[in-house]
Amino acid sequence: MNDLEIYLKATGAKVSAALNTLLPPAVERPQRLHEAMRYTVFAGGKRLRPILCIAACESCGGLAEQALKAACAVEILHTYTLIHDDLPAMDNDTLRRGYPTCHIRFDEATAILAGDALLTLAFEIPATVPDVGSALVLELARAAGSRGIVGGQIEDLAAEGRPPDADTVEYIHRNKTAALIRAACVMGGLCIGADFRYLEKLALYGQNIGLAFQIIDDLLDESSTPEKLGKDIGSDKVNRKMTWQAVHGIDAARAKARELTTSATAATDGLPNGARLREIAEKMLRRTF
Amino acid sequence: MNDLEIYLKATGAKVSAALNTLLPPAVERPQRLHEAMRYTVFAGGKRLRPILCIAACESCGGLAEQALKAACAVEILHTYTLIHDDLPAMDNDTLRRGYPTCHIRFDEATAILAGDALLTLAFEIPATVPDVGSALVLELARAAGSRGIVGGQIEDLAAEGRPPDADTVEYIHRNKTAALIRAACVMGGLCIGADFRYLEKLALYGQNIGLAFQIIDDLLDESSTPEKLGKDIGSDKVNRKMTWQAVHGIDAARAKARELTTSATAATDGLPNGARLREIAEKMLRRTF
Repeated sequence: MNDLEIYLKATGAKVSAALNTLLPPAVERPQRLHEAMRYTVFAGGKRLRPILCIAACESCGGLAEQALKAACAVEILHTYTLIHDDLPAMDNDTLRRGYPTCHIRFDEATAILAGDALLTLAFEIPATVPDVGSALVLELARAAGSRGIVGGQIEDLAAEGRPPDADTVEYIHRNKTAALIRAACVMGGLCIGADFRYLEKLALYGQNIGLAFQIIDDLLDESSTPEKLGKDIGSDKVNRKMTWQAVHGIDAARAKARELTTSATAATDGLPNGARLREIAEKMLRRTF
Repeated sequence: MNDLEIYLKATGAKVSAALNTLLPPAVERPQRLHEAMRYTVFAGGKRLRPILCIAACESCGGLAEQALKAACAVEILHTYTLIHDDLPAMDNDTLRRGYPTCHIRFDEATAILAGDALLTLAFEIPATVPDVGSALVLELARAAGSRGIVGGQIEDLAAEGRPPDADTVEYIHRNKTAALIRAACVMGGLCIGADFRYLEKLALYGQNIGLAFQIIDDLLDESSTPEKLGKDIGSDKVNRKMTWQAVHGIDAARAKARELTTSATAATDGLPNGARLREIAEKMLRRTF
């Protein structure tokens, strides 16, 4: 393992340990709900968003510990979106990261409620952070609501089977994926009360790698093996989802991901410690992450 | 109309007007989602919780306007719980307050997402309140999460068809209903930075009328007319829900509601302007409200 891989592993482990203390124990009533919440949070995620939150905090001169609650809130919110997206009324997925999805392992009502409880917890946790609690909640809520993730998801569902168009793909990717990655980076800076010039850079960095991430994800969905992805291959094509390559072609999609990564890297210029963010952006482009 | 009725009507109208400006316009993308969010928020609710939030603020010497955002957040959060509770995987209700429920009027995916977006908005709004934003978010999140509303709902579902027992009924009522009413009252005080001794009184008041409210609701569910309730009569019995009267009998349920109302009224002693809260508690007991 090189230095970056060690960093990602150690930071991911830090996040998982913190999540373990922040989530209600499975033995606490209502047990089945708490079990379902924990099941999906600990079902093999790579902790990309919380790691970015922490790396963003460090890029402004902060310590990982200062961003830990915000990082966990982002991951918990991300987990709720996975649970609800997988529901029968939505993408109707039975497998996620190699595990049965929440409504398969438990049941539909429990999955809806586990998602609701995680979404709520994602706001409760940052609200306890001194001084910047409401700023963190606001950033997260704006990324997550009808003008962010939820808006992206409903347009994604509505776009299924429609002929692909550039405007819709961009809307979906920006809201469904990039908004939360962008918020994760901004929240990392907010945790230590970073200067707004730094926050601006983090927002730009996050926005660009967020879009790149989704483009690469869609490219991988068509070309990878089931073992690597932990879900059925080509499921996007089966559901006829709108993807960047469906609109612009595979070569243009690859070029766009490269271009966005370059823009993200450039945005970190002037941050006190931007090197780690640049390394992560490059690694995301190669996607061994 | 007497003075109290004028107050309830005027305050409810104030809340509805504020909700109209706080909810994204239906013409804004994604239109169908914003339409669904507005549909249920404006589907004939009595605005009980936001009125209590405002009355609580006034009871500590504040103005209605100072609690308006918090009041709207509570009502928006309450609306999300109605949408998700009505879903086919949960209570599977088709009618609510005389209107088709959200998943009937739109579709299941839209209803799930409208609920998610409303829940998110319910935290975004108080996060913008100066000084006390994070305290408001925290109070609301604690009432709404797995140790509050969501916990109450899952235990309610699990209890269907089981023999009624006192402990479970109390758990469900406390979490599913009383927690948010209690939070609404506390938040009203928080909005003006009220002394913790006042907050304590508001919490006690809210807790007691919250429990009384649910007991009365269940009593009405068996005895009212469809026109009054705006939903099918006796649906609790059909779903074999656990109610206070199922455990303790109708007379004991009525006596308990009376006793809780007395406790709520007593809790307002020592508040600068507690008269309105006492009037509301009495009116809720009579339930022409």
